[in-house]
Amino acid sequence: MSDKFVVIGERIHVISPEIKEALATRNAAPIIARGKAQLEAGADYLDVNIGPAERDGADIMRWIVPELQKALDGAPLVLDTVNRDALRAGLEVYDASKGRAIVNSADAGERLPNIDLAAEFGAIAIGLLIDKGVPRNNDERNEYLQVILEHSMEAGMDPSEDVWFDPLVLVVKGMQEKQEEFLEFLRILKEMGLKSTCGLSNASNGMPAHVRPVVDSVLCGMSIECGLTSAILNPLEKSLMDTIKTSEVILNRTLYADSYLDI
Amino acid sequence: MSDKFVVIGERIHVISPEIKEALATRNAAPIIARGKAQLEAGADYLDVNIGPAERDGADIMRWIVPELQKALDGAPLVLDTVNRDALRAGLEVYDASKGRAIVNSADAGERLPNIDLAAEFGAIAIGLLIDKGVPRNNDERNEYLQVILEHSMEAGMDPSEDVWFDPLVLVVKGMQEKQEEFLEFLRILKEMGLKSTCGLSNASNGMPAHVRPVVDSVLCGMSIECGLTSAILNPLEKSLMDTIKTSEVILNRTLYADSYLDI
Repeated sequence: MSDKFVVIGERIHVISPEIKEALATRNAAPIIARGKAQLEAGADYLDVNIGPAERDGADIMRWIVPELQKALDGAPLVLDTVNRDALRAGLEVYDASKGRAIVNSADAGERLPNIDLAAEFGAIAIGLLIDKGVPRNNDERNEYLQVILEHSMEAGMDPSEDVWFDPLVLVVKGMQEKQEEFLEFLRILKEMGLKSTCGLSNASNGMPAHVRPVVDSVLCGMSIECGLTSAILNPLEKSLMDTIKTSEVILNRTLYADSYLDI
Repeated sequence: MSDKFVVIGERIHVISPEIKEALATRNAAPIIARGKAQLEAGADYLDVNIGPAERDGADIMRWIVPELQKALDGAPLVLDTVNRDALRAGLEVYDASKGRAIVNSADAGERLPNIDLAAEFGAIAIGLLIDKGVPRNNDERNEYLQVILEHSMEAGMDPSEDVWFDPLVLVVKGMQEKQEEFLEFLRILKEMGLKSTCGLSNASNGMPAHVRPVVDSVLCGMSIECGLTSAILNPLEKSLMDTIKTSEVILNRTLYADSYLDI
């Protein structure tokens, strides 16, 4: 049996007005509440997206990382910002006793040095397969993959453990013809023995609210079958979590029990 | 874009007491009603399973096939019985104007001659990848596949069009470790350019009622991703039909529209 699929909860995100306000006023309670709800719903990691936070990103990370981990029994976190100083500040105060920190994200372009940052702190790096723009096809994905692979090995990382590659989910509405290639790239990563993650719900951007969970769930099941080992998603969306649990049962990674959806 | 996924409605089945009674008393109305409901829910074909019907199978088929087709605008049918005389009787009266008949099923053992029967009537044969027992692994599936392939070519069929191969869904509860191999075999069939079908809900046999549609749907999405081109299922199960429609969108076989789930 392979490793358990890793669910990264996406709901601590500056795009939420509630979270934005809480970060700005250093009010930890609503952020902790969202973290707790996601962990209870089955999240393994909490993504903490503070936005670019150009002015005070380091301060924010230095404050929120221990606040969350103290309140939530050391819950493992994904530090999510383009601000490298903020990533460093978060890593400096991170408690890895319940799981390594994840840096979100490095890429094959300007954010390539975030690989070194992750390596310096023994953290995992998400390696986004982009350079300047989104990958136009799997040749480009492969090109970016090679850049990140090489750099991570130079940094002393084991790329099969220390980097999770994100082939970038493209929005179905507008790039419908690109989905199959995405799935194919997951299979390539699997065959190479590499781990993967992605922002799953990007696929259904712009779709009606009742359609989104259906598209996300079907794509999720297909992606796991193709080798996806982790995803950043909303764990409160029951159909997604049911899909993940069921995929694990079908692929024989967790033992079936009649109650498996409730566990 | 490849062919549209073919949904075969499973609800005209002698295992239903209502259908059993209707077949025995030659009362077409409840059978037609089930056919109509399935077509309205999106079925492309109706499976007509009359059981072994050793005594009067030919009479039943000679009666129900035209009854159904006349009442349902020539709806295409899957003739489903182990009784070869009954299959022949059904094929003799079948109206192929809306779609070729499908013989359910041939296999690599005693039912191999059903390939010839289908060929004689220009029908499609479902080629079940079994001999005496269920396939223990993909080596056995491949062995049975070769037998059916060879026989169908001898019968003058084009095996990429005229035979739909059924790798046999095994029940998850009890054969959990066999599911990945099933999916792998679908990929093999796809790579060979062969069509496929299966009795999808067999996977969730013995599971609680609220779990079955979840397992069936996730397996369905994964199976379509791996190349499954048709399935025998309950089209009244909305989550299954939503999964199929969504799979077709993700794999770019039907054009996305915000209303696609309602079409």
